[in-house]
Amino acid sequence: MEKIKGLIDAPFTPFGPNGDVNLEPIPTYAAMLAKNGLRGVFINGSSGEGYMLTEEERMRLAEAWMDAAPADFKVIVHVGSTCVRQSFRLAQHAQRIGAWGIGAMAPPFPKVGRVEELVKYCEEIAAGAPELPFYFYHIPAFNGAYLPMVEFLAAVDGRIPNFAGIKYTYESLYEYNQCRLYKGGKFDMLHGQDETILPCLAMGGAQGGIGGTTNYNGRELVGILEAWQAGDLELARERQNFSQEVINVICRYRGNIVGGKRIMKLIGLDLGPNRTPFRNITPEEEAAMKRELEAIGFFERCNRF
Amino acid sequence: MEKIKGLIDAPFTPFGPNGDVNLEPIPTYAAMLAKNGLRGVFINGSSGEGYMLTEEERMRLAEAWMDAAPADFKVIVHVGSTCVRQSFRLAQHAQRIGAWGIGAMAPPFPKVGRVEELVKYCEEIAAGAPELPFYFYHIPAFNGAYLPMVEFLAAVDGRIPNFAGIKYTYESLYEYNQCRLYKGGKFDMLHGQDETILPCLAMGGAQGGIGGTTNYNGRELVGILEAWQAGDLELARERQNFSQEVINVICRYRGNIVGGKRIMKLIGLDLGPNRTPFRNITPEEEAAMKRELEAIGFFERCNRF
Amino acid sequence: MEKIKGLIDAPFTPFGPNGDVNLEPIPTYAAMLAKNGLRGVFINGSSGEGYMLTEEERMRLAEAWMDAAPADFKVIVHVGSTCVRQSFRLAQHAQRIGAWGIGAMAPPFPKVGRVEELVKYCEEIAAGAPELPFYFYHIPAFNGAYLPMVEFLAAVDGRIPNFAGIKYTYESLYEYNQCRLYKGGKFDMLHGQDETILPCLAMGGAQGGIGGTTNYNGRELVGILEAWQAGDLELARERQNFSQEVINVICRYRGNIVGGKRIMKLIGLDLGPNRTPFRNITPEEEAAMKRELEAIGFFERCNRF
Amino acid sequence: MEKIKGLIDAPFTPFGPNGDVNLEPIPTYAAMLAKNGLRGVFINGSSGEGYMLTEEERMRLAEAWMDAAPADFKVIVHVGSTCVRQSFRLAQHAQRIGAWGIGAMAPPFPKVGRVEELVKYCEEIAAGAPELPFYFYHIPAFNGAYLPMVEFLAAVDGRIPNFAGIKYTYESLYEYNQCRLYKGGKFDMLHGQDETILPCLAMGGAQGGIGGTTNYNGRELVGILEAWQAGDLELARERQNFSQEVINVICRYRGNIVGGKRIMKLIGLDLGPNRTPFRNITPEEEAAMKRELEAIGFFERCNRF
Repeated sequence: MEKIKGLIDAPFTPFGPNGDVNLEPIPTYAAMLAKNGLRGVFINGSSGEGYMLTEEERMRLAEAWMDAAPADFKVIVHVGSTCVRQSFRLAQHAQRIGAWGIGAMAPPFPKVGRVEELVKYCEEIAAGAPELPFYFYHIPAFNGAYLPMVEFLAAVDGRIPNFAGIKYTYESLYEYNQCRLYKGGKFDMLHGQDETILPCLAMGGAQGGIGGTTNYNGRELVGILEAWQAGDLELARERQNFSQEVINVICRYRGNIVGGKRIMKLIGLDLGPNRTPFRNITPEEEAAMKRELEAIGFFERCNRF
Repeated sequence: MEKIKGLIDAPFTPFGPNGDVNLEPIPTYAAMLAKNGLRGVFINGSSGEGYMLTEEERMRLAEAWMDAAPADFKVIVHVGSTCVRQSFRLAQHAQRIGAWGIGAMAPPFPKVGRVEELVKYCEEIAAGAPELPFYFYHIPAFNGAYLPMVEFLAAVDGRIPNFAGIKYTYESLYEYNQCRLYKGGKFDMLHGQDETILPCLAMGGAQGGIGGTTNYNGRELVGILEAWQAGDLELARERQNFSQEVINVICRYRGNIVGGKRIMKLIGLDLGPNRTPFRNITPEEEAAMKRELEAIGFFERCNRF
Repeated sequence: MEKIKGLIDAPFTPFGPNGDVNLEPIPTYAAMLAKNGLRGVFINGSSGEGYMLTEEERMRLAEAWMDAAPADFKVIVHVGSTCVRQSFRLAQHAQRIGAWGIGAMAPPFPKVGRVEELVKYCEEIAAGAPELPFYFYHIPAFNGAYLPMVEFLAAVDGRIPNFAGIKYTYESLYEYNQCRLYKGGKFDMLHGQDETILPCLAMGGAQGGIGGTTNYNGRELVGILEAWQAGDLELARERQNFSQEVINVICRYRGNIVGGKRIMKLIGLDLGPNRTPFRNITPEEEAAMKRELEAIGFFERCNRF
Repeated sequence: MEKIKGLIDAPFTPFGPNGDVNLEPIPTYAAMLAKNGLRGVFINGSSGEGYMLTEEERMRLAEAWMDAAPADFKVIVHVGSTCVRQSFRLAQHAQRIGAWGIGAMAPPFPKVGRVEELVKYCEEIAAGAPELPFYFYHIPAFNGAYLPMVEFLAAVDGRIPNFAGIKYTYESLYEYNQCRLYKGGKFDMLHGQDETILPCLAMGGAQGGIGGTTNYNGRELVGILEAWQAGDLELARERQNFSQEVINVICRYRGNIVGGKRIMKLIGLDLGPNRTPFRNITPEEEAAMKRELEAIGFFERCNRF
């Protein structure tokens, strides 16, 4: 199965002032991402507030991204939900509209406590799009699924035919590396933490990744891979350190889903508010965040339209 | 606002062999519950695998329960989901079909970490059914929303006009009692743990409750309230102790949603399997559970058709 | 084995201004507790900052309480620590000085994750005082030992000869009751949450208990048992509700170990500060807490000297 | 302040068959570690079961290590405990006997929930050895002290004169790096996870570290630093991957404190059992672990005497 090279972006979902999904910015959004070196999008995931969307909204968004995607720009649709029936239908829809791949995180309820439960969950969903690669999105901080991933790989191996790999959004580079080494690199281990791309590269990983801060800081993050490949360790470090500084700011504004989404407005693409129960950034917070970003020179280095 | 007296049942959702929702058993189910002393149902909640159902399935189930409900049998529809837009529509639907009330638990994702986030979540949903009482379903073990409930009551008070009270499914009888005493008993505190009805009655609470094991052990649980009201403490204790023994058995078979649902088959109403990611009871487990229930004399005391 | 009737107090440890243990107030303290209806003390436990004391300090405190104890006033010494060798010596010392009993909570490090580990820990310590009853002090919120207590009882039964029972400081009245019913009441289940004495009595438990707020609110808490035994449910409820109000105040001042200890000064017995890492109450906080206690009429109902 | 270069070992504590501390193997142990490239020891920490030792035992161990230490071999004494008075005395003792430095992890009870509490705890202990560098040992998985370390550094900076840095045993290389960059590298950030030395080096960190598996796999772990410094990335990766394989084995035998300690016997230095509540390796487990280690070629690459 093809392995992803480079960085995929996890886009935010644009909402209008009334809270409806707003498809209008998507072509501009997709073009901007491609221009800044991103290789595709992982839509309707956590950055995209996928769990906060209705089934129809998720389908309309997938169609809009397919329409907007430039050539060779991968559209991966996150189809996970607490209802496998709905996720199955979303998987079918993704295949029908020609998406490049699908993914699903573990359901936050009921909490999956055993590898077998997670395998069955993935199996039933992956069956909805048998022609597409399926990625498990490992982000236990969001759903409590702190399960051993090497054991999970061994359990899906030979059982889910279109299983492609893991979007690994967790701190353990040890476990990441063990997954990467599984059967000589059988599965695609997408690195999913923008703050540790460089250390992961050193281990031999992070050939492909999915980013959340790539939405606005994609040039620098793509630049880490470029510098590493060019053998310029100092430049790679400088870019990684800068990217951590950007993340430091976001962490003070409720993280990427809330604070990061508002940065899009600051760089020129207003994507509207977040859905309840997220607490939106206030105008005062927005101004303060802008000042902090200016102080680290973010607006000279951020993504360009 | 009217306060609920007696016990409401949280029914399981019947599935057919192919995994589709099966509406056929519902009239029998409703009649059985009423016959055994239950005052209504809280449908599509955790026992009902509400989060594992599609929006349409949840609506069809609500309609079927409305059709099947005997006179004076309350139908409360759990409309909570990770998507407030969907929950709002489910609330509208519940009001349209004449349900008695609605409820919602906190979303498991994103985890609500502040009272204000939870209030806003409830507010947006409750607005979908302004003529129905809205109950917050507090079950933090399922969604991580370990928030202080007295503070929550103070925050919704005067803000959500149709806020009725809390279905309180948590161990702290201390906090339950403080909520009960809030403004002289302003809100309806439904007791939500079948294992502690008697101690809660002693404190002055549990006038109304919502049970999960009432599906099959309703006579005994209703009997605790009756014995207490009749001043027969020894009988109340005997029934409470017996009910705990039933729960001891269920705990060895993955709890009420999985093990308890299978008990329905054993007492004569096959409701089919659970949805993924729940692991279903195997035939061997079913036989073992049956033996354990026989050993405590359950089948002489369980609900009757 | 004798079962404890009535309430035992878990005293605070007096410190002087320089942070040394101060034995001087102990005779007054012991006499006051006895006068207000307490049947004994459980010293060097969590209220007593036992884990924050050196081995010698713990021994000197035990001796001072033995010297000060009135006739028929039980002195139970908490000997738990992260070092079983030290706990064994403390157990030996307790027996040597004629203490009534000993107890130990699970060590907070390393976290015990299995019943067998906990049994072995208790076994090695209990062997230090073979002539004294040994109580396991279950307070998982403090040490993460969320282990099933019925299973634990079955594991110690027949193995630890002087095992007497459990000081149960956890919210689950369901599990408490199951432990109480184990082999027809074989073990002594001391209730350990002052906020739920009444509900526990209704279940048939709480014949004996160990309190933390009994230090200053003992008359009311003892009064709950008295009212219940006299058949006066309304009075028992009033006293339980009042006691919860007292606890509500303490919870706003870092709980019983910090806030409660300072109440002792307010009622006439200054016990000094808490040890690091506890943060001490500031004078402003003390004044605010005093006002809150006055507002609920605490000083009319509190313990008397 | 001097920064540590290279790897320090966290030794196990030898016990005799009767469970007493056994000082006899320590000279051999120290010589072996030095021979295999380790630069010193961090004694009485988690690998050394420091919390399971009495105060005297900790002092005797510190003296024995001082006596056995070769020239230029650093002896850092972990003095943390739940009792700051005891820790203060251990710190005084460490300074008196000429130890190179001291350290303390956060107490597991009471759980420190605020940076200020942790700072005060460290401050009172560090004051016992004002002439020695003090390291905070960050290992939140063991004590629940999940506090922000950059904030902690800012809080101790200028307040604890002999504060040297952090032994960082946690997965977040992001936070590690932010600590490393604090004020241009003001504090010594000792890397404390043997499984991720290489990625940490890539970020610019891990110039110094403290290992637990260095006891038996020190040559390979030291070799990662050597290969990196020599610019041989492939060799560094091979050694890091091998070291992860060793850790994979240990994880199947209750981790380093239990399984790792038994490996010492397998390579020629029997250090005896673990203290309760640790569950010791059975002979069958020992044999199985040996086979697993043979299968990965461990005994050809392990430490030599």
